[in-house]
Amino acid sequence: MLVVMQAHATEEQIRAVCQKIEVMGYRPHAMPGATRTAIGVTGNQGEVEQGTLGEMPGVQEVIRVSKLYKLVSRDVKEENTVLRFAGTDATIGGKNLAVIAGPCAIENRDQAFAVAERVARAGAQFFRGGAYKPRTSPYTFQGLGEAGLRIMAEIRERFGLKIITEAIDNESLALVAEYADVIQIGARNMQNFSLLKRAGRAKKPVMVKRGMSATLEEFLMAAEYVMSEGNYQVILCERGVRTFADHTRNTLDLSIVPAVQRLSHLPIVVDPSHGTGKRNKVTPMSRAAVAVGADGLIVEVHNQPDKALSDGAQSLYPEQFEELMVQVRQIAAVVGREVVPIGAEAVSEPARAR
Amino acid sequence: MLVVMQAHATEEQIRAVCQKIEVMGYRPHAMPGATRTAIGVTGNQGEVEQGTLGEMPGVQEVIRVSKLYKLVSRDVKEENTVLRFAGTDATIGGKNLAVIAGPCAIENRDQAFAVAERVARAGAQFFRGGAYKPRTSPYTFQGLGEAGLRIMAEIRERFGLKIITEAIDNESLALVAEYADVIQIGARNMQNFSLLKRAGRAKKPVMVKRGMSATLEEFLMAAEYVMSEGNYQVILCERGVRTFADHTRNTLDLSIVPAVQRLSHLPIVVDPSHGTGKRNKVTPMSRAAVAVGADGLIVEVHNQPDKALSDGAQSLYPEQFEELMVQVRQIAAVVGREVVPIGAEAVSEPARAR
Amino acid sequence: MLVVMQAHATEEQIRAVCQKIEVMGYRPHAMPGATRTAIGVTGNQGEVEQGTLGEMPGVQEVIRVSKLYKLVSRDVKEENTVLRFAGTDATIGGKNLAVIAGPCAIENRDQAFAVAERVARAGAQFFRGGAYKPRTSPYTFQGLGEAGLRIMAEIRERFGLKIITEAIDNESLALVAEYADVIQIGARNMQNFSLLKRAGRAKKPVMVKRGMSATLEEFLMAAEYVMSEGNYQVILCERGVRTFADHTRNTLDLSIVPAVQRLSHLPIVVDPSHGTGKRNKVTPMSRAAVAVGADGLIVEVHNQPDKALSDGAQSLYPEQFEELMVQVRQIAAVVGREVVPIGAEAVSEPARAR
Amino acid sequence: MLVVMQAHATEEQIRAVCQKIEVMGYRPHAMPGATRTAIGVTGNQGEVEQGTLGEMPGVQEVIRVSKLYKLVSRDVKEENTVLRFAGTDATIGGKNLAVIAGPCAIENRDQAFAVAERVARAGAQFFRGGAYKPRTSPYTFQGLGEAGLRIMAEIRERFGLKIITEAIDNESLALVAEYADVIQIGARNMQNFSLLKRAGRAKKPVMVKRGMSATLEEFLMAAEYVMSEGNYQVILCERGVRTFADHTRNTLDLSIVPAVQRLSHLPIVVDPSHGTGKRNKVTPMSRAAVAVGADGLIVEVHNQPDKALSDGAQSLYPEQFEELMVQVRQIAAVVGREVVPIGAEAVSEPARAR
Repeated sequence: MLVVMQAHATEEQIRAVCQKIEVMGYRPHAMPGATRTAIGVTGNQGEVEQGTLGEMPGVQEVIRVSKLYKLVSRDVKEENTVLRFAGTDATIGGKNLAVIAGPCAIENRDQAFAVAERVARAGAQFFRGGAYKPRTSPYTFQGLGEAGLRIMAEIRERFGLKIITEAIDNESLALVAEYADVIQIGARNMQNFSLLKRAGRAKKPVMVKRGMSATLEEFLMAAEYVMSEGNYQVILCERGVRTFADHTRNTLDLSIVPAVQRLSHLPIVVDPSHGTGKRNKVTPMSRAAVAVGADGLIVEVHNQPDKALSDGAQSLYPEQFEELMVQVRQIAAVVGREVVPIGAEAVSEPARAR
Repeated sequence: MLVVMQAHATEEQIRAVCQKIEVMGYRPHAMPGATRTAIGVTGNQGEVEQGTLGEMPGVQEVIRVSKLYKLVSRDVKEENTVLRFAGTDATIGGKNLAVIAGPCAIENRDQAFAVAERVARAGAQFFRGGAYKPRTSPYTFQGLGEAGLRIMAEIRERFGLKIITEAIDNESLALVAEYADVIQIGARNMQNFSLLKRAGRAKKPVMVKRGMSATLEEFLMAAEYVMSEGNYQVILCERGVRTFADHTRNTLDLSIVPAVQRLSHLPIVVDPSHGTGKRNKVTPMSRAAVAVGADGLIVEVHNQPDKALSDGAQSLYPEQFEELMVQVRQIAAVVGREVVPIGAEAVSEPARAR
Repeated sequence: MLVVMQAHATEEQIRAVCQKIEVMGYRPHAMPGATRTAIGVTGNQGEVEQGTLGEMPGVQEVIRVSKLYKLVSRDVKEENTVLRFAGTDATIGGKNLAVIAGPCAIENRDQAFAVAERVARAGAQFFRGGAYKPRTSPYTFQGLGEAGLRIMAEIRERFGLKIITEAIDNESLALVAEYADVIQIGARNMQNFSLLKRAGRAKKPVMVKRGMSATLEEFLMAAEYVMSEGNYQVILCERGVRTFADHTRNTLDLSIVPAVQRLSHLPIVVDPSHGTGKRNKVTPMSRAAVAVGADGLIVEVHNQPDKALSDGAQSLYPEQFEELMVQVRQIAAVVGREVVPIGAEAVSEPARAR
Repeated sequence: MLVVMQAHATEEQIRAVCQKIEVMGYRPHAMPGATRTAIGVTGNQGEVEQGTLGEMPGVQEVIRVSKLYKLVSRDVKEENTVLRFAGTDATIGGKNLAVIAGPCAIENRDQAFAVAERVARAGAQFFRGGAYKPRTSPYTFQGLGEAGLRIMAEIRERFGLKIITEAIDNESLALVAEYADVIQIGARNMQNFSLLKRAGRAKKPVMVKRGMSATLEEFLMAAEYVMSEGNYQVILCERGVRTFADHTRNTLDLSIVPAVQRLSHLPIVVDPSHGTGKRNKVTPMSRAAVAVGADGLIVEVHNQPDKALSDGAQSLYPEQFEELMVQVRQIAAVVGREVVPIGAEAVSEPARAR
């Protein structure tokens, strides 16, 4: 259910409606828009009763929402959700094309810094790197854990890059929420509803990657799980789905970008690295992702891909990433986007300090 | 790596080899077979060094295992793993065809008891029922939680049925391990490696359901995760994969049964309910699953499918389950299996007590 | 549209209705059933007008059929279609389990005879063998063409086996229709509508194999194409679909068997050889196919699989086929089927003549 | 096998080598490149013997090609194949971005002319329209046949647009080859090898659409079939593959574009209309297709989509196509492509004549 407030409704009226909803046993989700605030109402289960909400001061109308997804929907919030990050003009979901880059896994401080410096210089605003790696085999490198998180926190200090990294369970989520700027939920956990709910109670934005065989609806519902707990800072990420096709590791489904944007106000970025699994496909598919209208890219870059502890075959060399950025900026311009640099101080200062 | 002990190796020699392996920094997994014991060696990461293991008393040979999966492999254990359950002759993986039946979700005591009585009478030895339900929407019935587990524990007492139920996170896993006889890891969590490891430290058998787009290798590796933590009581479960086909909810891939049995000593059961999503396909696909050689069936049965809180469309009516059992017993006989009844006392006594 | 005749309608009345339908510009398809005849009405395109058909003598009712498939539907013909073959009691679609066996391709007379003798002795009633092979590469063996058909005609004479072989275009179809007992349309041509129509004008039964990514509806519509031209002797064949799964060449979708049988009166057989692509999966999946209720099996057998010119890896050795038949007969008995031998004379006489 | 001629080899030497190859019982395929000519050698089946070819005048080396695809491969021809069309500068495979547009089916002269005028004015150089429609149901509109071809021939006269239309069997292929500029082989016939060979003997370029579940290798082999018969003017077309995803009708797999371009010299175009099945996805996916590097687009446009006899839901309104062209031109510029207009006379003259 959705309570649409009048354009001139006061903060107090909004608060009163929210309180009334809570008294009724439901949960209010106030979503301020450009012209009016809408309040999504979710209950523990099933139907929500309207009661006398429609007659409260400031309420314009009460709408029954029949779709499975509610808070992710444009019905609740018409304008795009734009995520902002302190100390930088870079956004996710706004005019800025969010560029997230870094190695698959944080292997050690030198490797991470080497990659971070190159991607920051080339124009990335966000740094990715796995500290907790969900690996198919229990006998392969599982990530540095908190030590990896600490390295990334240093990278933020040094290069001004905002940090995105994956949480794989409650313990790692608590730590990621502490160290990072965005909590990533990986494709294999897209329907780990327990983890999604926990992410919904975290205070940091959450990026949900599409599961390998997730439908559009399931993808949106994963975001809904996060939002239903009160965390509205959600980013979706297409990273390829599993099909019969064998020329790429996954089949990157770019059509989900306009499909998501039609139904939801949430930003969606594209991961051409996992989406193809092949270095030589990353740049063309990055161009395509920007052209289709994605809100950003998340790209794997490694200073020595051949020695990478994971996913080396899909990691770009730093020079390739620089070339990718050149091409991507041009396409971005055509679709009305630009790559907003991170604060000049942030980048140059450490460079001087060096 | 795999240390094969001589046929006449003593317990002491086996223990000594295991200790040596631990001293070397690895983890030993002793797997007794019909004629000899093999000790699987796993390390935290990557290669394992052989050292002087080959020269220890009782050691026949040391074999390098190149496959990704080690402990699940027939290389380590040639004979089928047979799971036994106290107080009953029913096994999983032996001559007995394991029949697991029950509602999708435990809704209340009456419903659960009504279904349990019917399936026990028809020949099921295991009772399934969800207390923690992984649901696509956060706004739908999520299960009764511990109250559901308690109802199932009562059902075990009353009907002698062994209990299988799903754990969805660490908290629920601890409770499921306490109340149930088999811990189920659902398809959506097949690559929730954190949960798999936790299940590997539990003291109860674990049933791992195949992910919706899991390859054979990924499926086996999920079991490997559980085993790598020391829990060797693992059952695999095929429950249908996601394809373009739309006449069933999932595409039940029965060919994985002989494929698993060729590579692994672990038992594999089939879930025709989720595997088809349609009541009228459950019985024919159950017959097919037994004919192909599955070690068991897990079937949804509900006393009032039309009023079920989840998955009613794929739940059998109790009479249909009885008819299924008649057909399945006949096919089982052809492939050298039988349905071993749970202890007569177990069923009849509580019935009297009623 | 469907004109249902009264139970006691005379031949003459049926003929009159058919003529009336033709006069109206449509095409009548009289389908005699156990108790009554139904007449399917198809037009060139779109809607069919009912006119005064409902008032003609012998007409019980006129039904508008909204499904895409009409003639394949149980709406038009409730009873199973049973195909009979002169000189043998073997049927396809009746109580008999149709067993079709033979090499992927006819390579030469000796090979074909060697295989035919073994499969006939083991209980096959139908012989398969490709004379026209649709191969992915233009540079690989494309079949013996008419010479292959002649060898198969000899095999029919000698062993009493009925012949099933693939037609790949109009030219080969004309020849196949002349030499063989059943015309096979391969998976790659399942939507070669021009060829399907041509098969619909042939005087021999047609077996349509499911396309690699065909839905149930598309599969039935392929049969509808054949029937719409007046050939009602159609057999469907499941041969595996293409999915992400890599432990088999294709994913054999046995659930399509009950799905087809629910909607259509046409028989459906299963090809576990193409359906799995692996010799060691053929026997278990054959058992499963019979258990699920298939009307028959089509199995590749080769006397020297390692030297086969095509698909050797999925061909059974003759001894394996004999063992398969032993197992399959037992499963068949459970589901109320039997393997009807081809006429004793047919097999023994040529044997004597030898 | 591949015979690489020396850079200065004469026409006569090339001819001599070709003759020698024929004498040896094989088929020569001379492929002139920028610096040298390579001669692909194909035989009826299997291995090709080298003989004394390596010692003939003008021969630089003889290379054994182990890949399945030979003539489509960059091994045989390093430079991109560029198709040219008389009376226009528009090419397929060159700097020009080929824009092919028109209705799904030619319904009548007025509809076809109305669409053609609009797409020509907006910048399309090629006109598409089905005269022979492969339809899932035998009871739906199957196309105007030769009458449709005649209308398209008029459109070529009137607007200067080159004509691309589908052939579905030998009969229609002969007619299409007569009337059209490019013969289209549809997705459902991608492995109709008989039709591919026939197209290989036609004198017009052939566009092969990717089958719904075709791998990269199978896609290239379909083109190889055409080329093996001597027709080297082949265009590939990605049109979406079949997956579990349900937010689009097919999943448009743009990664196949760089994958094809890496292995083959043949041009590849993208069909976002069939590739998505939804009007609102066509423009974003067209931008993406151009950005990824496709050699062209094939787009469905209809003057009255809601009244279209087929595929109306995926057809653009003419104004939408104009807008698409504006966006596509900009993206094209970024990737070094341009949209070359058809001869000014061609467009303007008929306009005046009107």
